Amino acid sequence: MVVNSLKFSKVDRNLIEEYAKRINLEFKEGNIGYFHLPKTGLDVLDEVKEFIKNKEFDDLVVVGMGGSSLGTKAVCKLLGNKKIRINFLDNLDFYSFSNIVNSLKFDKTLFFIVSKSGTTIETITIFKKIISKFEVKTFSKNFVFITDHGSNLEKLAKDLDVKVFNIPSNVGGRFSVLSPSTTVILEILGYDVKEFLNGASKCANEFFIEKDDTILQKAYHYATHKKAKINVLFSYLDRFKSFNNWYVQLWAESLGKKKEYKRFGLTPVALIGSRDQHSFLQLIMDGIKDKTVTFIRVLEEEIDKNKINLGLKYLESCDFVNGYSMSEILNLQCESTMQAVINEGISVDLIELNKLDEWHVGYLLYYYMLLTSAVGVMLDINTYDQPGVEIGKRILKTLISK
Amino acid sequence: MVVNSLKFSKVDRNLIEEYAKRINLEFKEGNIGYFHLPKTGLDVLDEVKEFIKNKEFDDLVVVGMGGSSLGTKAVCKLLGNKKIRINFLDNLDFYSFSNIVNSLKFDKTLFFIVSKSGTTIETITIFKKIISKFEVKTFSKNFVFITDHGSNLEKLAKDLDVKVFNIPSNVGGRFSVLSPSTTVILEILGYDVKEFLNGASKCANEFFIEKDDTILQKAYHYATHKKAKINVLFSYLDRFKSFNNWYVQLWAESLGKKKEYKRFGLTPVALIGSRDQHSFLQLIMDGIKDKTVTFIRVLEEEIDKNKINLGLKYLESCDFVNGYSMSEILNLQCESTMQAVINEGISVDLIELNKLDEWHVGYLLYYYMLLTSAVGVMLDINTYDQPGVEIGKRILKTLISK
Repeated sequence: MVVNSLKFSKVDRNLIEEYAKRINLEFKEGNIGYFHLPKTGLDVLDEVKEFIKNKEFDDLVVVGMGGSSLGTKAVCKLLGNKKIRINFLDNLDFYSFSNIVNSLKFDKTLFFIVSKSGTTIETITIFKKIISKFEVKTFSKNFVFITDHGSNLEKLAKDLDVKVFNIPSNVGGRFSVLSPSTTVILEILGYDVKEFLNGASKCANEFFIEKDDTILQKAYHYATHKKAKINVLFSYLDRFKSFNNWYVQLWAESLGKKKEYKRFGLTPVALIGSRDQHSFLQLIMDGIKDKTVTFIRVLEEEIDKNKINLGLKYLESCDFVNGYSMSEILNLQCESTMQAVINEGISVDLIELNKLDEWHVGYLLYYYMLLTSAVGVMLDINTYDQPGVEIGKRILKTLISK
Repeated sequence: MVVNSLKFSKVDRNLIEEYAKRINLEFKEGNIGYFHLPKTGLDVLDEVKEFIKNKEFDDLVVVGMGGSSLGTKAVCKLLGNKKIRINFLDNLDFYSFSNIVNSLKFDKTLFFIVSKSGTTIETITIFKKIISKFEVKTFSKNFVFITDHGSNLEKLAKDLDVKVFNIPSNVGGRFSVLSPSTTVILEILGYDVKEFLNGASKCANEFFIEKDDTILQKAYHYATHKKAKINVLFSYLDRFKSFNNWYVQLWAESLGKKKEYKRFGLTPVALIGSRDQHSFLQLIMDGIKDKTVTFIRVLEEEIDKNKINLGLKYLESCDFVNGYSMSEILNLQCESTMQAVINEGISVDLIELNKLDEWHVGYLLYYYMLLTSAVGVMLDINTYDQPGVEIGKRILKTLISK
């Protein structure tokens, strides 16, 4: 179960009804592909099983930038390790590249080259480095391409006899975490993709069928807040680090937009508790009130059974947590910090996941994509494009051609 | 060499002269301890050499929150691995805790319990977990405490016959990266602490003796900018990730302050290029103009000699980077993105490090502490306290005592 509690006032349903209708219309029209992935996402799995049959790998390597790797990384890090190791090459960084590729046995590695357009400069450059490093002659056993149908990368795949999975054309990169760009990899690693999509489906049903208005209320609060243009996510468990990065991309790239000379933008900041209570909390508490804060915690950390039960001389002031496990203390820290932030009059909400498994992760990801869509509708912007990043690419070409 | 180029207009020297004087006064008064650490920081090293004599370790583990670990982690990750492995326990997260401690041999591990106050709840709780996990009976060989002189943790050290190093009392946690809380660990790992402090010293000299006003100009621009309350740091190399986290704490906790009902606050956002060009750049480019951006790049990546020289059929549009190494492309991406952001009329500056070594890292850390101090002086706030984080701690005690 996932419960989202808003600690600020809801508005009258009439104020958000029009937005609800528009999102429902978007859902029915079918142009926004991710809405429907919980239902259609299973289709690819038989093909994956067929592909992986009689193959054995020690390592998977995902080569992809932004939405082509962030979602997959978020899910894998939240759910924890499987027998096959998963690695990510998501930057043009030779040091990181070397550290990872030097630890691989090529024969036992499956590389995923993930690029929607098929021509992401970093992705293709890293692909070239892999080819050079391992002096690759045949590709079919050790490579999979995940790309748009008809892309040039897909054409190359045919020449190289490489297996291709397509991202549906109406699914944007940062909304692709329920699509084959992630699910193919999850399936091979041995995660339960069906439960993952079931969790997402539950969130979709609550929103579209049961008409739960929590997401709309939260989106409306964010879209209309006059001062708070920074949305802080405070996740209490280290495993949320990559999820936090996924959130930052989803939020920043979807909601930072220009429209007819007017600029919109909600800035995401993602933190890990309790660690960042010693880093960023001071600014939330005493700084300018330009932030909202969402706390996330996981209620059942089943692995952690042992209570702290040791007293240390001179340090008796730290003994008040004795009788609790580490994760119980962490969740109490989440609660106390949340209370302190609420006391400052800052808009807060809390997301509680019963546990970290495929179902809950699927739910949470869908929740955040819906929330982003809802804010985008309320700001009346195009949530799904990213025109601002093109200019830098053009300048890069000019710089190099000089 | 470190060069900082401001891509926005400087102001007349008269406008900042008064601030320069105040910081020089702070420097002479001696209450702000970090100013002088480049000169005094070497004093402890003989004691470290004496302590480590005839001891051999495979692993060091730093147990510390916020300023007690962020600086050390930043330096170690920037400079890369040494023979002895370094690990950080910086959160009350049982999963992370288990992953690290299960990989250790206790006899070959040296644990640093780092807490200025000596009673940081997470640090002491993790210390207790370590004691329980390894059923520790004798502490003297495998533990070092780093804490304020006279703290209760120091008292416990005497009972347990544990070696103690002190953080000077006038050095705050987030300004302690040049103090024994970091240098003791760097020395044991085998980094060149002298060069590290020399780099910091060079930065201090440029500011206090040569009267270079770049930092003051930048601070003034930030402190007086009416709209840009978010300061983005865009570092082009994965190794800056932990440095980015150190910057976030330094900036957020120092500059987010209340004073007589007035609230101040500059929000730090830290990114890694080129990766986050696919995540956050859209928001910078098209979103509300509430940000400044600092780009950091390293000019000489000596390890990366090989040029990309492969052409791929159908992907000829990606061949324009052929003839360049990965790190050359990365630095060109930094330049082109910077140009694109400048074109949008956003305040930008560029920090260029010749290479990543102890000297340059020491310089960079001192640069950022000075910049923070200068902004604090210009905002007329107390840069060195953190009253806002105490309330949550009190609520935690109340929650638990219920």
